[in-house]
Amino acid sequence: MEGRDVVVINQPLLPHRFELLRLKNHRQTANAITTMIIRGAGTIGATAGYGMAQAYLEGVDLDQAYATLLHTRPTAADLKHALDRVRANARTAAEAVAVANEIADEYVVRMQAVGKFGLPLIKNGSRILTHCNAGWLALVDWGSAPAPIYLAHRKGRKVFVWVDETRPRNQGANFTSWEFMQEGIPHKVIADNAGGFYMRRGEVDLCIVGADRVAANGDVANKIGTYQKAVLAKENGIPFYVAIPSSTIDLKCKTGDDIPIEERAEDEVHYVGRTRITPKGARAGNPAFDVTPAKYVTGLITERGIIKPAELRRIFGSH
Amino acid sequence: MEGRDVVVINQPLLPHRFELLRLKNHRQTANAITTMIIRGAGTIGATAGYGMAQAYLEGVDLDQAYATLLHTRPTAADLKHALDRVRANARTAAEAVAVANEIADEYVVRMQAVGKFGLPLIKNGSRILTHCNAGWLALVDWGSAPAPIYLAHRKGRKVFVWVDETRPRNQGANFTSWEFMQEGIPHKVIADNAGGFYMRRGEVDLCIVGADRVAANGDVANKIGTYQKAVLAKENGIPFYVAIPSSTIDLKCKTGDDIPIEERAEDEVHYVGRTRITPKGARAGNPAFDVTPAKYVTGLITERGIIKPAELRRIFGSH
Repeated sequence: MEGRDVVVINQPLLPHRFELLRLKNHRQTANAITTMIIRGAGTIGATAGYGMAQAYLEGVDLDQAYATLLHTRPTAADLKHALDRVRANARTAAEAVAVANEIADEYVVRMQAVGKFGLPLIKNGSRILTHCNAGWLALVDWGSAPAPIYLAHRKGRKVFVWVDETRPRNQGANFTSWEFMQEGIPHKVIADNAGGFYMRRGEVDLCIVGADRVAANGDVANKIGTYQKAVLAKENGIPFYVAIPSSTIDLKCKTGDDIPIEERAEDEVHYVGRTRITPKGARAGNPAFDVTPAKYVTGLITERGIIKPAELRRIFGSH
Repeated sequence: MEGRDVVVINQPLLPHRFELLRLKNHRQTANAITTMIIRGAGTIGATAGYGMAQAYLEGVDLDQAYATLLHTRPTAADLKHALDRVRANARTAAEAVAVANEIADEYVVRMQAVGKFGLPLIKNGSRILTHCNAGWLALVDWGSAPAPIYLAHRKGRKVFVWVDETRPRNQGANFTSWEFMQEGIPHKVIADNAGGFYMRRGEVDLCIVGADRVAANGDVANKIGTYQKAVLAKENGIPFYVAIPSSTIDLKCKTGDDIPIEERAEDEVHYVGRTRITPKGARAGNPAFDVTPAKYVTGLITERGIIKPAELRRIFGSH
């Protein structure tokens, strides 16, 4: 936050252009979340916290601002966590900014812990498959799924990552690959169709993905296609890990079936950039997320260590 | 064939423009196969047969022409079948054209039979998932996977198809959706990531795909991503059928591991139309096919009926 502005990376311009964008009030911030100028569970949470702080600074009706920010995206648990936390802990605008700063800073600390706890999973020579983008663009400074990878790489371990391009919005190709280029992480971008092929050929040692919401029973909502990779991993005896900050856990959702799944505009399927890939008049289905049942999840990499999905309620029941 | 020219649909212009292209000699025909101006197991076979006939008409060295045409694409079994059949049965150019015509016409008859045998699988209200394009563009007039769907639709059964867009070349979005628009088949194009989501939600009753080569043990090589859908179907208790003419069976391949898998150019992953989706300098993996082990295949829909993969050798051992 700079003054009253929230300054974010203008993500749709990546991977070809890096630009910052100033969001001047809570409405612009809400709009940036809806239109996915910023996206990713933690970045949504941090930005929403700042958006709520902006509402305090603007002196607008806080209930209305809360509702505006809450209804930007339905699936990410971090969004509501951040908004609730600012409202519950701030009476003044200065306090709201302080709480929002706290939320953003905590992502850095928590994701460093995720990196540290996930590190032993990554051996020298490990070949990792990841889906979508759960890196610094998505989760402030470190990211969830890539945090252990970044740490292993900095410690000199040889790693290689298969990056799912992640249609329809290509967050893997646009963002994860771009982050890995900045970090010097060897990787190849692959069509979402190809991961199973490499798994069956024995060229994937483990999978790590992020999540948008984790239910009390350990079911994981994450970018559409995650479920497919989890089933394929299990079928091929490959461990499948989900890296998350505790703010992604929603114990009020008993199972994944309680998590609302966002259906986005058909045009995300019809177009890639300006290229229309379907015939005019064709219809498309576009669920943005899917639910991976807990039985496919080898472990959750959290800021308190790697835990089994079944341990979630015991360990995070009081947070 | 018109005179000495092979006239084909210029497939890369679809779904936005329909144009015919004249291939004036066997080299142009070979080039059209390599560059995927025409593609699809049966269309490759039929076109290769005509290319061989062109070589006879041109009076060029037949061994050389055979090699040129054979080395266009490595995975499709129909290609070699067609070339061998023209060479084995034609001494003169007129005979070569006649054999090539026979090959093309046989696809129509065989695929009608595939449609007829597959028809009972499709009930009124069936929701079918298909991958890639195995329709008339891929297999002359009827196609393999869609043949039972077209027949059910003409008989007035209500059908609905989930069409995988099929990255990286989008044959589902470009071709299958276009064919379905012409035939009036209700369908939605979906990202390759979404099929598992709809399966788990109980919105897929069966899967039907085509194949590029089927090994003696029933392992199926088909467009990259087929394996993923087959595993997901099994996991969700959904029948998974592979529709093929017998020319796609290669008994010389004992298992799928004997089938060569084409690795295509990285740019197919980097670009969609003119839009580059990956950062400059990023690498990509691009296997064009994968192998689905026979254990995931509920049945093969062939011109002799629906058979189990294990029955393949007994039934087609002598063809």
